[in-house]
Amino acid sequence: MTDTVRPEFIDFAHRLADAAGAVIRPYFRAAVAVDEKADDSPVTIADRDAEAAMRDLIAATFPDHGILGEEHGAERRDAEFVWVLDPIDGTKSFITGSPLFGTLVALTQNGRPVLGVIDQPITGERWLGVAGQATVLNGKPIGVRACDEIGRAVMFCYGVESFEGARGAVFREIGARVKLKRFSADCYAYGLLAAGFADLVIEDGMSPWDYCALTPVVEGAGGIITDWQGAPLGLDSGDTVLACGDRTLHEKLLRLTGR
Amino acid sequence: MTDTVRPEFIDFAHRLADAAGAVIRPYFRAAVAVDEKADDSPVTIADRDAEAAMRDLIAATFPDHGILGEEHGAERRDAEFVWVLDPIDGTKSFITGSPLFGTLVALTQNGRPVLGVIDQPITGERWLGVAGQATVLNGKPIGVRACDEIGRAVMFCYGVESFEGARGAVFREIGARVKLKRFSADCYAYGLLAAGFADLVIEDGMSPWDYCALTPVVEGAGGIITDWQGAPLGLDSGDTVLACGDRTLHEKLLRLTGR
Repeated sequence: MTDTVRPEFIDFAHRLADAAGAVIRPYFRAAVAVDEKADDSPVTIADRDAEAAMRDLIAATFPDHGILGEEHGAERRDAEFVWVLDPIDGTKSFITGSPLFGTLVALTQNGRPVLGVIDQPITGERWLGVAGQATVLNGKPIGVRACDEIGRAVMFCYGVESFEGARGAVFREIGARVKLKRFSADCYAYGLLAAGFADLVIEDGMSPWDYCALTPVVEGAGGIITDWQGAPLGLDSGDTVLACGDRTLHEKLLRLTGR
Repeated sequence: MTDTVRPEFIDFAHRLADAAGAVIRPYFRAAVAVDEKADDSPVTIADRDAEAAMRDLIAATFPDHGILGEEHGAERRDAEFVWVLDPIDGTKSFITGSPLFGTLVALTQNGRPVLGVIDQPITGERWLGVAGQATVLNGKPIGVRACDEIGRAVMFCYGVESFEGARGAVFREIGARVKLKRFSADCYAYGLLAAGFADLVIEDGMSPWDYCALTPVVEGAGGIITDWQGAPLGLDSGDTVLACGDRTLHEKLLRLTGR
């Protein structure tokens, strides 16, 4: 059962994003050592310290809430409320000096995302999605655009790697049919979709800290975001994501992604 | 023969970029009709009006100078001084709401680029390269980084289309060997290379208005930018570009691109 999201949780999500941004900004375009994680993805002190700052705030403010973070793991993952954190979604953007990475903050209630923030601390853009409310970008309501034809759609995805990987055939078929493809945008792409400047984002290899924050942002803007089988996303979902501004487009794409 | 670039030309290049930015900003993330050019690339009123504003300034200030612009063609192309303009390099970024497009302003003297500006009017970033001077980003000197091994390099290129196109084998071979690939960044990638956050940018399908402004920016930061045969770029070059921060890396890549 999901209740109305309490205003104190919304205020606190802003505090978390503020805290992460304060840690991250001094490291942007600075000389930062890049380590490699077990999955070969890059990580920096900015990722680790930004998540630690958010975890400290959560522990001090809502000690009974759970936490799931990309860099420092899970605590009380089966609590009613769990904060799901990705301090820098798009570390490859971050380490190459591109200001299109984002800090992702989500709150799940009983495993379902009810609040999501996408924060870009360099350009000063913050998307906020809350269950039952209109998504806002820097406080202003935004909405998706209509586009019910694959052939007219602007598609975002992670990169050429997706076209080559295990599910490459799906990416190649959709990629060959859309009007325009854009790459390497990470969470920012979902913010653009929510604001009406893209029609679909398709990805695989995703984790809960990648998509839990995106879900309320996309849904509150009138869009739809599910896995490749059309199931809603939550703490226990798999690794595929399909987001669309237009429900008809989403239905058409599900026929290609595996329903 | 190339002389020292006159300070009045540098001041004027800033005025041109200012004028273009003033036209472009109100159209960013606004409802703008997207037309298709003969080559299927998108164009908007923002592209056309920003270039027109720059051309008016040039005609009023330096009526004997030539102009070559992406949207409105060439005038006095064989003049000693020619202003080479791309009002929005990265129109696909612009129309999808990504602030990584750029206004490109170059001055060529006897066909060779001696001054280049990459201006990002939304984030407020401006790169300035002048022959014989250190490249600056918002007034602060920047420089490339060392990276003499392909396997350690961060590569930028236009997109997956390059990997599929006529020269796809070159992109695929280099792409398979680098440490990290990034896409869809247009001129911004050269700015990141000049600032030491990328090691190589490789593209084809380029025009003089795409690369003339990039040349002084990359060279003034200590990098090297040529065509795929290693020839310097100018008003009459072909359509390939290979930019590196490190000369040894550039030499190694030329062996793959066709020298």
